[in-house]
Amino acid sequence: MHPASPKKVLITDTTLRDAHQSLIATRLRTEDMLPLAREIDSCGFFSVEAWGGATFDTCIRFLNDDPWDRLRALKSELKHTPIQMLLRGQNLVGYRHYPDDVVDKFVDAAHKNGVDIFRIFDALNDIRNMTRSMKRVKDNGAHLQSTISYTTSPVHSTRSFIDMAKELYALECDSICIKDMAGLIMPEQARELITGIKKAVDVKVCLHSHCTSGIAPMSYQAAISAGVDILDTAMSPIAMGTSQPPTESVVASLTGTSRDTGIDLIKLRAVRNQVLRIRDKYQGLLDPISERVDSDVLIYQLPGGMISNIVSQLKEQDALDRWDDVLAEVPRVREDLGYPPLVTPTSQIVGTQAVLNVLVNGQRYRNVTKEVKDYVRGLYGKSPGSISDEIRTLIIGDEKVITQRPADLLEPSYDSMKAEATRAGLIKKEEDVLTYILYPAIAPSFLKGERTIEEIPRKQSAPTSPSDDIPSQMEVEV
Amino acid sequence: MHPASPKKVLITDTTLRDAHQSLIATRLRTEDMLPLAREIDSCGFFSVEAWGGATFDTCIRFLNDDPWDRLRALKSELKHTPIQMLLRGQNLVGYRHYPDDVVDKFVDAAHKNGVDIFRIFDALNDIRNMTRSMKRVKDNGAHLQSTISYTTSPVHSTRSFIDMAKELYALECDSICIKDMAGLIMPEQARELITGIKKAVDVKVCLHSHCTSGIAPMSYQAAISAGVDILDTAMSPIAMGTSQPPTESVVASLTGTSRDTGIDLIKLRAVRNQVLRIRDKYQGLLDPISERVDSDVLIYQLPGGMISNIVSQLKEQDALDRWDDVLAEVPRVREDLGYPPLVTPTSQIVGTQAVLNVLVNGQRYRNVTKEVKDYVRGLYGKSPGSISDEIRTLIIGDEKVITQRPADLLEPSYDSMKAEATRAGLIKKEEDVLTYILYPAIAPSFLKGERTIEEIPRKQSAPTSPSDDIPSQMEVEV
Ligand SMILES: [Co+2]
Ligand SMILES: [Co+2]
Repeated sequence: MHPASPKKVLITDTTLRDAHQSLIATRLRTEDMLPLAREIDSCGFFSVEAWGGATFDTCIRFLNDDPWDRLRALKSELKHTPIQMLLRGQNLVGYRHYPDDVVDKFVDAAHKNGVDIFRIFDALNDIRNMTRSMKRVKDNGAHLQSTISYTTSPVHSTRSFIDMAKELYALECDSICIKDMAGLIMPEQARELITGIKKAVDVKVCLHSHCTSGIAPMSYQAAISAGVDILDTAMSPIAMGTSQPPTESVVASLTGTSRDTGIDLIKLRAVRNQVLRIRDKYQGLLDPISERVDSDVLIYQLPGGMISNIVSQLKEQDALDRWDDVLAEVPRVREDLGYPPLVTPTSQIVGTQAVLNVLVNGQRYRNVTKEVKDYVRGLYGKSPGSISDEIRTLIIGDEKVITQRPADLLEPSYDSMKAEATRAGLIKKEEDVLTYILYPAIAPSFLKGERTIEEIPRKQSAPTSPSDDIPSQMEVEV
Repeated sequence: MHPASPKKVLITDTTLRDAHQSLIATRLRTEDMLPLAREIDSCGFFSVEAWGGATFDTCIRFLNDDPWDRLRALKSELKHTPIQMLLRGQNLVGYRHYPDDVVDKFVDAAHKNGVDIFRIFDALNDIRNMTRSMKRVKDNGAHLQSTISYTTSPVHSTRSFIDMAKELYALECDSICIKDMAGLIMPEQARELITGIKKAVDVKVCLHSHCTSGIAPMSYQAAISAGVDILDTAMSPIAMGTSQPPTESVVASLTGTSRDTGIDLIKLRAVRNQVLRIRDKYQGLLDPISERVDSDVLIYQLPGGMISNIVSQLKEQDALDRWDDVLAEVPRVREDLGYPPLVTPTSQIVGTQAVLNVLVNGQRYRNVTKEVKDYVRGLYGKSPGSISDEIRTLIIGDEKVITQRPADLLEPSYDSMKAEATRAGLIKKEEDVLTYILYPAIAPSFLKGERTIEEIPRKQSAPTSPSDDIPSQMEVEV
């Protein structure tokens, strides 16, 4: 409740999750995580984000690495530091809604195997997509960090985000995260939003941003002035660029002030040296472009991954000359759809439709993807702004729009899927059932031990300048 | 005079000087500067730092590029934007004191050929080393930006820097720059210092920092809150790392606020695309390590270039195992010498003596360099803190310490040097005399057209991790 609280700033280090997801395609292997976790454990971080997000998918798809084994192994190293995971609400660590019984089982298993803090978000900020997992986290007695997906639009404002914070608080969260996945939050907005939330609710506030646009360190400073409680940072060798601001810098900037983190820089240096070696090992996955400031994100406000998706779609159609048209179409589609935050999966949904709208000349929404139809049908949740009757009719005719929580349409499936997987001989431990439910296409070969570990590519060649017309690519944060 | 002035933040873009000095060894060629200057000219920057510092030396030493011709060519492109130079006080753009007549001639020639704003500093903050050039700038009717070399030590404080600002103001400067060459200034210190200076004197205040430690963007944000007038930034492709915070990010962070720079992001995008191409061309000079945050600078507070100098000295002596001892000795030597800011030339002076003190076991100051002796004799100016009788005696015995301004000991030399150079057939234009006086060893071959342009090396190989014991190298800012 104090706008400039004199308490110490808490640090959530993201090196083991978001930093490598942002810079090296989530490819950090368990074997490299464990010694690092051991070293990190004595730093005194509020938490270590080390699981969830895209790590689950990557583990089984590319690394032949069991995510549950990883979690337990991390837990055995992180004896003093809470493990934090990123959970996509009803999507868990997948890309679609799962039935409530699966959500409950997943949260239970994650907590049992080592997750202490659950950061839960929904891409549309539809809290109904978050409530089931939120409640289950509380039932487990774990720390619930409820999340606001930050974006900018005519229907989003400091006021609307503060209102969302109040709703989340009313649902009994332990902390609130402002998740700025595209690095769009400006210092002034960060200050207003944090001050406003802390006035409205008595809960710790965390700011999570990305350096994509080069502004995150400035917004972190504004956040500190405004009394933010927790900041997300990454160890310097995989900080900056599309990752977080550097842990060492944020810690040092506060040393000796009234908000000193209490973290020892010399201790961080030992961690840093380990991360430098990791960086060397994974060098071939680092795109130098993703390490630099991309000012395009400031102009078009598109997350970088979306830009690269659109470019590759246009290339496939041999229509790169339509880039400017697509760039102009994206905000129109986003407006038509009620201004969803552009983050997985909405960034892909909006981008693909913008391409279709441009390529079918003068015939917007003549071709419409299944995803856009489902979105308009309400199957992803409630859009932040309303969708006009005209657009709705254009896309789904007079089909019904659901108004209930999308997961209410889903039947319980844990037991039947478990029986199915067991019959197929896939289940060695209970958590394998969840792996099977979440990734039914990959899980069978993974659980049978038929997958192999992807090699780390050799060092990438020098980046070339993008032309004046085609913005450069970046990783997207999910 | 307003701690949080509502006026717009002015931007000095350093792309044409400090950014390439920091990241690509000052090697940017005039041919690449000119089209960039043309593009930059319409951005609406307060100024473009484009001359001085190490550029003069590099021009004649490595690029076979006449610095005076460069300046005039830049002037013909920068029709709307003031050209700013970095002048090392009585050292001009060299490494030793020059007589007053040379200082006067140099300032006159720089102004006549295109410099509008002179940023003048002294490595020891000895204002007597700055007054001659300061006065001459004012006599020329140019903008005088007097400079505080920022450092941290028991004899430096916000109070002492504010006192220095008052002295500089009393000498009639047009603006004051806080020059944080090692990226050491913390947000809280930046806020206190800027607030204090703006309370004390009615003059524009500029903050110049480097991202070496990753803290500059945070300190810039604190500076903006404190009402800073001017910020030094570099275009994103050669920003960050040992260079400045990105121009685009700082501009975007202020867009729509009461301190909006008025600079157009779309316009900056066109400039950015040119700088991306430049970056590609000079890729081989970019050390990936200098582009990353170096947290060692936060621990040891040594500028990176100093670390690399010491490492190479130890290597030559096959004494790398003494690294920790040297690291402990550096602050002792700095203390002995009255805490000079560690910047060229004092960083080299202190570092070399620390190595000697360690290698001659238990015999500190048994071997003393000529530079340390001259320093103790007062020939570099007045040290910030006092030197004890014991240390002074150890170093120069009972030799006399000068108390007057060092340049008072120098006889006028312009005319005699001009005659000498003319006899040697070196002078085609008056400015060649200054080139000759500043770089007597290189100028003859340069002025005779006997030098060749250095090739840009091929792309550097991947960096390797430093060991736990030897910190990584970086460029030093002079
Ligand atoms: Co993120
Ligand atoms: Co500098």
